[in-house]
Amino acid sequence: MASDSPSGTPLTPSVVFENLQAFQRTAALKAAIELDVFRAVGQGPGDVASIAMHASASERGIRILCDFLVVAGLLEKVDGRYRHTPSSAAFLDPSSPTCLASIVRFLSLPELREPFEHLADIVRKGRTVLPGAGSVEAENPIWVEFAQSMGPMMAPMAGPLGAIVLEGRRGPMRVLDIAAGHGLFGIEIAKQNPQAQVTGLDWAPVLRVALENARRAGVQDRYDMLPGSAFDVEFGGPYDAVLLTNFLHHFDVETCVELLKKVRRSLKPDGCAATLEFVPNEDRVSPPIPAAFSMTMLTSTTAGDAYTFRELSEMHRRAGFRTATAHPIPRSPHTIVMAQM
Amino acid sequence: MASDSPSGTPLTPSVVFENLQAFQRTAALKAAIELDVFRAVGQGPGDVASIAMHASASERGIRILCDFLVVAGLLEKVDGRYRHTPSSAAFLDPSSPTCLASIVRFLSLPELREPFEHLADIVRKGRTVLPGAGSVEAENPIWVEFAQSMGPMMAPMAGPLGAIVLEGRRGPMRVLDIAAGHGLFGIEIAKQNPQAQVTGLDWAPVLRVALENARRAGVQDRYDMLPGSAFDVEFGGPYDAVLLTNFLHHFDVETCVELLKKVRRSLKPDGCAATLEFVPNEDRVSPPIPAAFSMTMLTSTTAGDAYTFRELSEMHRRAGFRTATAHPIPRSPHTIVMAQM
Repeated sequence: MASDSPSGTPLTPSVVFENLQAFQRTAALKAAIELDVFRAVGQGPGDVASIAMHASASERGIRILCDFLVVAGLLEKVDGRYRHTPSSAAFLDPSSPTCLASIVRFLSLPELREPFEHLADIVRKGRTVLPGAGSVEAENPIWVEFAQSMGPMMAPMAGPLGAIVLEGRRGPMRVLDIAAGHGLFGIEIAKQNPQAQVTGLDWAPVLRVALENARRAGVQDRYDMLPGSAFDVEFGGPYDAVLLTNFLHHFDVETCVELLKKVRRSLKPDGCAATLEFVPNEDRVSPPIPAAFSMTMLTSTTAGDAYTFRELSEMHRRAGFRTATAHPIPRSPHTIVMAQM
Repeated sequence: MASDSPSGTPLTPSVVFENLQAFQRTAALKAAIELDVFRAVGQGPGDVASIAMHASASERGIRILCDFLVVAGLLEKVDGRYRHTPSSAAFLDPSSPTCLASIVRFLSLPELREPFEHLADIVRKGRTVLPGAGSVEAENPIWVEFAQSMGPMMAPMAGPLGAIVLEGRRGPMRVLDIAAGHGLFGIEIAKQNPQAQVTGLDWAPVLRVALENARRAGVQDRYDMLPGSAFDVEFGGPYDAVLLTNFLHHFDVETCVELLKKVRRSLKPDGCAATLEFVPNEDRVSPPIPAAFSMTMLTSTTAGDAYTFRELSEMHRRAGFRTATAHPIPRSPHTIVMAQM
């Protein structure tokens, strides 16, 4: 690997070459998931022949693919056999309860991939080349796929979000989950508080996924559906808490402020708004995942962004909230912003 | 960043997410080269507005692109302004004599990119989905682009290769450069030894690029052309040295052995064969660039590979060479294998 340390590490073009070839990593991980390689590795013995048999694939192909996954940090190789890293065991083996391989389906959607073929044009124009409002165009079917496949990545955030929202709130409460998607955040609150009544707001085909998840969690009797756009439907209420998860980043600051005003108007006087976001540091280049996320907003929306806490805090202030506090979720790239009236 | 250290670093899915999104890095670097961002950064002052003006691009697009390049290790950001890393200054700024941004043209060719859209199928079959012999199908025009755009990446290898070949060889000599491409390796020998006569072998449209480079270097009078396939044309000779640069990896072991036999027959009794290759360690998963290169051979050929030194050594032995020695080129992912009769 190249190092640009000024302390004298020799200069090489490796970082250039590796970035130009980085697309191969995406393809390799996707192919390995499709071929069920991570299950085969978990079952052992991890030699090329047995993985190839499991995957109904050639030994040449499996050997080169698995070696590549080792280079990419997604497997280990010991004495010529492949085995899991702690990460691949936890997050890529389908036999793991925390496996999130399904996220490949959402992240590989043509609507999210294809704009990158025109990135120079997008940078020139400053907005997505997708039609209309891009990924947030009304009734865009990608959000059904999001609801169906991104749950395993978002599930670990539900516990921390529920805990923060429910802190100091007991007994009957009403919760509005805006852009509910898979519904896991509202459902978590319903699970933690048996007297919570949750309303999921999203486009109707997406809400069907949320409702199915509510059924599985046994909270469907306390799960109401409000189909439509967060900008158009009446929220009803008043609510004790409104959840805004993975949503504000799709829009410009003014649109966020207007939406937060609408949220505030739907809250009880002691209500709260809980936002889950990728929140980069003020330098906008760290930590890597939240900082890089603004690229996804550039390519898929007209004016969205990964907002810093300062920006999110100012949006809430302008919408009439008294305080906003940041709660980074440990071992995740996400941050919860809690706003009080 | 995720760490899978068993010493207790918390486990996160970052490595999974970052590999699934790695294609964005390729697109970002490509767009930045296309928009001439690295020249703008080199000229300063490095603020978003001036880079956007230079690139005729939106400020939103440039800010998000440049932040992304910082995350990818391709720029630095200090006090809100972008500036070069040592690597980007040397290898991406067009005003640098060692700039190799042109390699994006070869590495982005649809013939090399598109197979990755079918990687699971390729792994199943164990060979490229490109027609015929893939990238080495007769007269494949991609090698004209290789000759035209990959020179700046290969140029730093020419000096070390020339030095090793010329060690102990003075005076009149004949050199055959197989799959000459840009011709830089044979040309370097002609430059270092004014009595060297070089024959470049490649398909005719490729040799035109080599000849033009020979003209620029002022050695065209000692540069002969042998158009055709290395497997079909008579090499002539006898030669003092035969160069085999970036070539053997396209073929299976038996094909390489047969070719090396043909090379040996064309050499003088004290002649040598000099091979330039990506040579991974025996574990096949290190160093990263040579090890990962076998993936490019899987996707673009029927049976090529990144061979280990043990494999290359054995090929040479079977072809009748007495010795083969490995010479890794410092600060590069390449290794020279020198074989003597």
